[in-house]
Amino acid sequence: MRFCPNRLFTKARNLIGIGLASSATVSTAAPTSSTSTSTSTSSAADTSSTYTTTTSDSPSSASSFAVDSSTDDDQKTRLCIIGSGPAAHTAAIYAARAELRPVLFEGWMANGVAPGGQLTTTTDVENFPGFPDGVSGSDLMDRCRRQSLRFGTEIITETVSKVDFSKRPFRIFTDSRTVLADAVIVATGAVARRLSFDGAGDGPDGFWNRGISACAVCDGAAPIFRNRPLAVIGGGDSAMEEANFLTKFGSKVYIIHRRDNFRASKIMQGRVLKNPKIEVLWNSEVVGAYGDEKSGGRVLGGIKVKNVVNGDVYDLKVNGLFFAIGHEPATKFLDGQLELDSDGYIVTKPGTTITSVEGVFAAGDVQDKKYRQAVTAAGTGCMAALDAEHYLQEIGTHEDKSN
Amino acid sequence: MRFCPNRLFTKARNLIGIGLASSATVSTAAPTSSTSTSTSTSSAADTSSTYTTTTSDSPSSASSFAVDSSTDDDQKTRLCIIGSGPAAHTAAIYAARAELRPVLFEGWMANGVAPGGQLTTTTDVENFPGFPDGVSGSDLMDRCRRQSLRFGTEIITETVSKVDFSKRPFRIFTDSRTVLADAVIVATGAVARRLSFDGAGDGPDGFWNRGISACAVCDGAAPIFRNRPLAVIGGGDSAMEEANFLTKFGSKVYIIHRRDNFRASKIMQGRVLKNPKIEVLWNSEVVGAYGDEKSGGRVLGGIKVKNVVNGDVYDLKVNGLFFAIGHEPATKFLDGQLELDSDGYIVTKPGTTITSVEGVFAAGDVQDKKYRQAVTAAGTGCMAALDAEHYLQEIGTHEDKSN
Repeated sequence: MRFCPNRLFTKARNLIGIGLASSATVSTAAPTSSTSTSTSTSSAADTSSTYTTTTSDSPSSASSFAVDSSTDDDQKTRLCIIGSGPAAHTAAIYAARAELRPVLFEGWMANGVAPGGQLTTTTDVENFPGFPDGVSGSDLMDRCRRQSLRFGTEIITETVSKVDFSKRPFRIFTDSRTVLADAVIVATGAVARRLSFDGAGDGPDGFWNRGISACAVCDGAAPIFRNRPLAVIGGGDSAMEEANFLTKFGSKVYIIHRRDNFRASKIMQGRVLKNPKIEVLWNSEVVGAYGDEKSGGRVLGGIKVKNVVNGDVYDLKVNGLFFAIGHEPATKFLDGQLELDSDGYIVTKPGTTITSVEGVFAAGDVQDKKYRQAVTAAGTGCMAALDAEHYLQEIGTHEDKSN
Repeated sequence: MRFCPNRLFTKARNLIGIGLASSATVSTAAPTSSTSTSTSTSSAADTSSTYTTTTSDSPSSASSFAVDSSTDDDQKTRLCIIGSGPAAHTAAIYAARAELRPVLFEGWMANGVAPGGQLTTTTDVENFPGFPDGVSGSDLMDRCRRQSLRFGTEIITETVSKVDFSKRPFRIFTDSRTVLADAVIVATGAVARRLSFDGAGDGPDGFWNRGISACAVCDGAAPIFRNRPLAVIGGGDSAMEEANFLTKFGSKVYIIHRRDNFRASKIMQGRVLKNPKIEVLWNSEVVGAYGDEKSGGRVLGGIKVKNVVNGDVYDLKVNGLFFAIGHEPATKFLDGQLELDSDGYIVTKPGTTITSVEGVFAAGDVQDKKYRQAVTAAGTGCMAALDAEHYLQEIGTHEDKSN
């Protein structure tokens, strides 16, 4: 199965909003950065239990756990970036080359997986420009991360638990430190919603990434779906669009919807209902997935569908199953301090990365529910860095710069 | 000198709008494409004088030079992409993976340089995400081009001379063929304006790319500019911003402006006039550039500045000179058929690639006078492909698809 660029965000998504109690943390700082005494390593894979604090110039520096107050010893930066996907790292590359010395919080997973860990479960990214032979998701993000570090980004492997945008400089808190920043870029991503049923997981018994996907655009062209029966779960515009899209590859496409009507727009419904390769299974939900015997059960062979009206459960042979039931942006940690839309995405001024708070910018999936691709996220990450640079020029923090 | 991503567009910029009289052309088609009998090669470097036409099934097929009419034999495609930079190729990668079999006009230079040729004069692109050690501009675009071909893009090495968006399907003309397309993506780029004076050229006697640049964001961080005197030509917001930006690197920054006041916004003027590292040379223009003796004249050592009030010409030692006098979008071939802004850029609905003509989309620098980076162009190229795919679903051309 091809790699879904959206999954690049999964790490960030999962990291933001997960509080760390007293977990061990490791901070990874760029060698060229001198604003922090964080442990410097060249790889995020170092998850040893070293506990580090930012400020060491004074033995009475701010308590590592004083998340509600800040002192003169708190780490200061002109730009703080929250996130670890293509938006965050592209912002960091641009900001670091502009000598803003950004501090980037890439988060830290409580389950012990290092940043980038989940990407190692994916295979090729085929649609990120510049990689004609594809690139693995983990390799791509490792490359972006190294590029951020090369120009002087300080990467901190801790999860941001809360922010305070009510006063300047802005305050960004983890369980162990507070960073003060003149500008902030939020690039925490969003996660595709997944359903939970037998065989839906990513463990050895599940078919996630082995026939089950949450991104038809990313994965639909994969050979395992060619001329095979496929299914889409959902009833909105995305589900309609993905079902139509998948008829280019599959022999047949089922739309499985738990109600007896779609909430999709009339025009998109019309396209689906007229498409001879699409069959709608109304009042239905998926209750299980099983393997393809020919593959020794390695990839998806079919699903169990339940009619929610009469309770009947039957087998449906499909080799691909696509969730099209929306995404969840990672915005809870903002605690309402930025304007969000009704789906929880950060509202930006169209064509820019400007948010409702001057000096705070948003890039990537956390502000994009439409395109959601790695390269669009990277593009908005660049925009955010340039918008932040412009803002910092206007407020005039350049005088503070010292080399 | 570091590579300026904007230069990625230079080829496209220069190709569009340059009419080919009876020049030899070569068409490069993807092996997987079957809609054209164009000569197929795997490399754009083949600029032999073979003349090919699209339609060979009938000896009486449309005249290669009948640009004002079309026949049943004209090549048909669902999506035509005009351009050859990161926006165009990212659009092609996405569209080709979506089985739209795009036809991409990369243009052909009258001076015999193959597409990508000008990029070979550049060195590292440092800020395109995914390339931590940098990548040359020509290598990056060659990689994108191979990626477009891999998924079935048909690349035609001819220059689009005109378009007809007044009827459906849209018509795209070169001097030798007409292509009919259900949707079009315009990604022809823009070119930074350059001044012409002794030593400004890119020949052996000029310092273009060897001290003279049109992009401070791209090139300012290069080692040759560190702690050296630099100069910016211009009087608008961009000139102010670039001058401020360059004070991070240079020992001193001159702004050379031919008038006695700036047209830049008050706030940006204020930042410049307060900056102790910036000196403004009013009523001045650059009339020459000369080499640095220490480098054997290889890189820029200084410029000759003329006071336009009294006519005096004097030497000014600078090791970097940055043009900040605007850009010229490649939109002339559109002949007013898309809404343009006052600077000639294509107007898009903010946050989308939708233009004033339904079914025509615009991506990259040709619609972006603000960010203008390779990665932002690539992002909008992806958006354009997704917008076009959505449009084509709505108008329902999928039934026409045959494999």
